Amino acid sequence: MKPVSATLLLVLDLLGTFVFAMEGASTGVQHELDLLGIMALAFVTALGGGIVRDLLIGSVPPNSINDWRYAATALFAAAVVFAGHNAVGHIPYWLLITLDAAGLGFFAIAGAGKALDFGIHPLLAILLGGVTGVGGGTIRDILLAQIPGVLRTDIYAAAALLGAAVLVLGLRIKLRPAFASTLGIVACFTLRMVAVHEHWNLPRVLGH
Amino acid sequence: MKPVSATLLLVLDLLGTFVFAMEGASTGVQHELDLLGIMALAFVTALGGGIVRDLLIGSVPPNSINDWRYAATALFAAAVVFAGHNAVGHIPYWLLITLDAAGLGFFAIAGAGKALDFGIHPLLAILLGGVTGVGGGTIRDILLAQIPGVLRTDIYAAAALLGAAVLVLGLRIKLRPAFASTLGIVACFTLRMVAVHEHWNLPRVLGH
Amino acid sequence: MKPVSATLLLVLDLLGTFVFAMEGASTGVQHELDLLGIMALAFVTALGGGIVRDLLIGSVPPNSINDWRYAATALFAAAVVFAGHNAVGHIPYWLLITLDAAGLGFFAIAGAGKALDFGIHPLLAILLGGVTGVGGGTIRDILLAQIPGVLRTDIYAAAALLGAAVLVLGLRIKLRPAFASTLGIVACFTLRMVAVHEHWNLPRVLGH
Repeated sequence: MKPVSATLLLVLDLLGTFVFAMEGASTGVQHELDLLGIMALAFVTALGGGIVRDLLIGSVPPNSINDWRYAATALFAAAVVFAGHNAVGHIPYWLLITLDAAGLGFFAIAGAGKALDFGIHPLLAILLGGVTGVGGGTIRDILLAQIPGVLRTDIYAAAALLGAAVLVLGLRIKLRPAFASTLGIVACFTLRMVAVHEHWNLPRVLGH
Repeated sequence: MKPVSATLLLVLDLLGTFVFAMEGASTGVQHELDLLGIMALAFVTALGGGIVRDLLIGSVPPNSINDWRYAATALFAAAVVFAGHNAVGHIPYWLLITLDAAGLGFFAIAGAGKALDFGIHPLLAILLGGVTGVGGGTIRDILLAQIPGVLRTDIYAAAALLGAAVLVLGLRIKLRPAFASTLGIVACFTLRMVAVHEHWNLPRVLGH
Repeated sequence: MKPVSATLLLVLDLLGTFVFAMEGASTGVQHELDLLGIMALAFVTALGGGIVRDLLIGSVPPNSINDWRYAATALFAAAVVFAGHNAVGHIPYWLLITLDAAGLGFFAIAGAGKALDFGIHPLLAILLGGVTGVGGGTIRDILLAQIPGVLRTDIYAAAALLGAAVLVLGLRIKLRPAFASTLGIVACFTLRMVAVHEHWNLPRVLGH
């Protein structure tokens, strides 16, 4: 998928990596991990989803193992959080949520697009877009011995899947890749932000 | 491994996927996950073991990523459980145990057979048969932040390993593949059912 | 990386596997797992780190799936622990720590060296050396539904990363591979032993 220039894609990817890594590192600080533990959480939160996707579609070594800039970005984000932890605690909640929703959308459409490029069936490509978006946070929660938040909390994975589905369907009806990608990111971002604002949740079985 | 017609094998594989996915989805309902969480648990419970096996033997993309019918079957099973949750709770325990034991046997011999096809040493092929049988449930338990039941509870992994071993030894002494496969499934199924009925357990170190 | 004779390397690798497998099996005994659970913990503790590394660098099937001697060594170590559990509890603490530190150093430099052989960037090769050293114990802790000790406890991953870094830098300045490897193992071993003795810890963010 080369919907826009490769440079712009790389910049977006590294920005998403930075945001997700900061979130992972912050979780590590909250759990009183040491510096290396914080770096490890930053790495897996930011890059774990893409690594799982790449292993599953047969793109090895995974992108973030092949290109040192991803690991460097994640470790730098961890160092920023560690060094300036008082400052980071003061990042406004709405800003963090907004950046995260944008990163989620980008990761989801990038993951689905790469899966399609590797000849994966559209249904699985959508699922792999979701894995790319939420896989890192899931591994982070597993490392912290917690049930992954994405399994029980509001509309997060659903937004990633929606973004991936919009991309896949958009390409199917021959939209230009750059346009389908943008639509997918906007769809994911919008659903996520509205869900946060309105406290939407997915249905669950009651009475258990 | 083509011990019987490819169509029969596919049907058995999808049936096993359906049974395991229903179990995964039911666990999700018990943990009060939302619809997507239930679908995710169904997917990993049914397909996680085979995915790990395929990654380890170098068969990428894994079967269930390559063929959309596996994901569709798992998601459909999750939808059935979600929609008819009252009905599912009423499936008799003995029926669930029986279907699960049959699925376990099939997954174990299919996994060991595929490993042999990829040139894996018989000892490892047996272990990979076990991984195919119990890997999905293990990942499900990890996602639920629980010690995998298979590590501590009665004879389950042992039955999968027995089935895989019977297949591998049967092929070694030149039994026809279809016959060795059937023997392996029967061995796994029988050991599992007797163990449930008799409350057999593996030995453990006492006094700790 | 062929810094010394292949036979010596294999022997060191199997010795490291044996030590790590015994530790994994002992943890299984402490958690009152059955025999198969103990064997599973021994296997993943000893071989999990190398398997993850091999999947990430694209060396599939992983070494320990391709060569039955690794699995056999791990399972034998588990059987030894299971059979002689009273004796194992009497292994002196300092001996266990010392063997573990040596195994950690060997796994770390072997992992980093193999990553370099596969054309991985030096920064990632160092990280993968660390993964090789601590990955197995991390997976073991995940299976036990615990936060991996390596994320919070003293200087362990740091020692593995130091050893890997010494190897990578040593090869960069054209040291002979055998010499760079030895330096790396010694560096890891020394840092680990001093840290245990002096109760060193990595910095963490206070007041959370």
